[in-house]
Amino acid sequence: MDGRDIKERSIILSDLRQRALDLHKKYKGKLATSIKPPVNGADDLSLLYSPGVGEVSKEIAQNLESAKLYTGLSNTVAVISDGSAVLGLGNIGPVAGLPVMEGKALLFKHFADIDSVPVVLDVHTADEIVATCKAIAPSFGAINLEDIKAPLCFEVEERLKEDLDIPVFHDDQHGTAIVVLAGLINSMKVVGKELNSTKITLVGAGAAGIAIAKIIKKYASGAEIVLVDSKGIVSKDRQDLNKYKQGFAVTAKGNLQDAVKDSDIFIGVSKPGLLTAELIATMNSSPVVFALANPDPEVLPEAAKKAGVAVIATGRSDLPNQVNNALVFPGIFRGALDNGVSKITDGHKIKAAKVLAAVVASPSADEIVPSIFTEGIVETISKEIV
Amino acid sequence: MDGRDIKERSIILSDLRQRALDLHKKYKGKLATSIKPPVNGADDLSLLYSPGVGEVSKEIAQNLESAKLYTGLSNTVAVISDGSAVLGLGNIGPVAGLPVMEGKALLFKHFADIDSVPVVLDVHTADEIVATCKAIAPSFGAINLEDIKAPLCFEVEERLKEDLDIPVFHDDQHGTAIVVLAGLINSMKVVGKELNSTKITLVGAGAAGIAIAKIIKKYASGAEIVLVDSKGIVSKDRQDLNKYKQGFAVTAKGNLQDAVKDSDIFIGVSKPGLLTAELIATMNSSPVVFALANPDPEVLPEAAKKAGVAVIATGRSDLPNQVNNALVFPGIFRGALDNGVSKITDGHKIKAAKVLAAVVASPSADEIVPSIFTEGIVETISKEIV
Repeated sequence: MDGRDIKERSIILSDLRQRALDLHKKYKGKLATSIKPPVNGADDLSLLYSPGVGEVSKEIAQNLESAKLYTGLSNTVAVISDGSAVLGLGNIGPVAGLPVMEGKALLFKHFADIDSVPVVLDVHTADEIVATCKAIAPSFGAINLEDIKAPLCFEVEERLKEDLDIPVFHDDQHGTAIVVLAGLINSMKVVGKELNSTKITLVGAGAAGIAIAKIIKKYASGAEIVLVDSKGIVSKDRQDLNKYKQGFAVTAKGNLQDAVKDSDIFIGVSKPGLLTAELIATMNSSPVVFALANPDPEVLPEAAKKAGVAVIATGRSDLPNQVNNALVFPGIFRGALDNGVSKITDGHKIKAAKVLAAVVASPSADEIVPSIFTEGIVETISKEIV
Repeated sequence: MDGRDIKERSIILSDLRQRALDLHKKYKGKLATSIKPPVNGADDLSLLYSPGVGEVSKEIAQNLESAKLYTGLSNTVAVISDGSAVLGLGNIGPVAGLPVMEGKALLFKHFADIDSVPVVLDVHTADEIVATCKAIAPSFGAINLEDIKAPLCFEVEERLKEDLDIPVFHDDQHGTAIVVLAGLINSMKVVGKELNSTKITLVGAGAAGIAIAKIIKKYASGAEIVLVDSKGIVSKDRQDLNKYKQGFAVTAKGNLQDAVKDSDIFIGVSKPGLLTAELIATMNSSPVVFALANPDPEVLPEAAKKAGVAVIATGRSDLPNQVNNALVFPGIFRGALDNGVSKITDGHKIKAAKVLAAVVASPSADEIVPSIFTEGIVETISKEIV
């Protein structure tokens, strides 16, 4: 970014900040509850509350499964966060994370007509988060974990998937990974390569990075992934790796520059401005770059194209090719709830990526993923979650 | 109840049962979420979700109190139950309790425009319930505890009130107690007695019974309360009393019959049919009877009047003088949220009872409490919660 870019961007951001604060203040947040059946007097209340509701409770006590028929369970998702990794803001805590969880609940409702409940937690160890989620689980048809820091998020999700019989999905991991895979599938069509034969530099080994590495390995086991964290290449001889990074450790070692050289694909879930023109020049022909740091990407599209990048995607809504979780999670949850699926598997994730990629009829450098406003995406994905 | 009464009532109940089940099935429960601000495209989403929402989170991280301005916190109440004492059904568990909690949330919305979230818990010790409530507390502006068995409910509420800085209110205790006190205040006008000089037999020493005893003692310390549980009078020489019952133990001993003799007031939160005409005949002149067992009271109004009762109240919506928590809890929470009150005190409860009693301009045997559909009750009560 040159000087003018920075100044313009800061004006835009300052305006955005005030508009966002004003809008949130005007509506006191984003969500309300509403009553589905008509309530016109004592007779309605006698059915919806005591004594009628007691009959419904008795029926469910006889057959717990029938709760899905008589309550909102089958359309209710908890959006749960401890506020330890909120957007790009880091560990800002549960209360400061609440507007984001309300926003997520808004997206659930807007895109998939799912009723969801923001639940922010004042506990921060895996044991406590797991215990709390399990304690409140009977209230919900599914759990969406959100903005929990790595590697805590991996353990929390694994244990909850094991212990609960409702879907548990950490969107920062899998939502991102699915959209990235969809984008890679279409990018390979644009540049005429096979994902299975590519070398991929993946920078950032947190929630999203690890999940992206996993889904690529599942879909294209021949792809060579070089994972890079803040200390350089995640190589086998490093002693500081958690078990999730260890799963992707390579024999190669070195820094970012060593990793990027001869790569076909650069995927960044890391820091603004990390990918320079000089680095891009060392990549293979027709480089593909997913610069997903938010709000400021590892490289801006204009600079990337000038440096010879064939396909560039970012996380930004004001730029083409937005890699946005909202393309995926509404359909995943809609499908799981409607089809009675209790575990979201790797198979579901790959199917979702494939059909999402196929929504773009003729992929081009300017369109490797659809817009979140494209009609029918939720239905298309939800049909695959069976 | 004679044979015909029982048959008629069973036809009515069977019809009610089917209508309640059908209605709950048709609407899949009672609650949905709704979105408050308009969402018409990418620009709206950029304010309500990323990147705009990040600015709101940053603002709250700087000043946690501002969450009340920018989120739904100040209008959101959790309705929390472990399903251990649901209506008259007992310990039917969290999932079977869910329709009741959804019903409570419906009442919150309908009467006080409060957004509330049913949270049923799969944990059942005081330590676990308290830990769970504390963990999720940052998500809510207040907590309504519901249908948790005694004496567990007392410890849970006490600890949460101590540990949290948001209002915590166990409605089965205090909602009931406040309406009972309001009804007693007006009943005394009808029969021309002073509550302070009455003898009260209070049958049932669970959540509601203990709370009723407490509020009467606070309001009219001269009243003589004889608490009765399933083993008879709660007397000082009994070895089986929990500390809550101990607080009201008397020197008198004996059974229900011994307790009722010479009472001015009978309050039952116990079992159907317990109060016979023979027992009523042993009460003082102009007896007042609150027969609150639900759905079948300790004595039916017709039989009570025949036996000489001056004022009879029940918990039933199809009979006059319904002692109904819904008269109280919407206003209590509306007031606490609007006025930034973090503890509901005994003072608040007594004020609420007084103004609720005063809603009935000219109390009579047929009207000692207002109907829940009376305009202005929520506002009247909420003004006292300051």
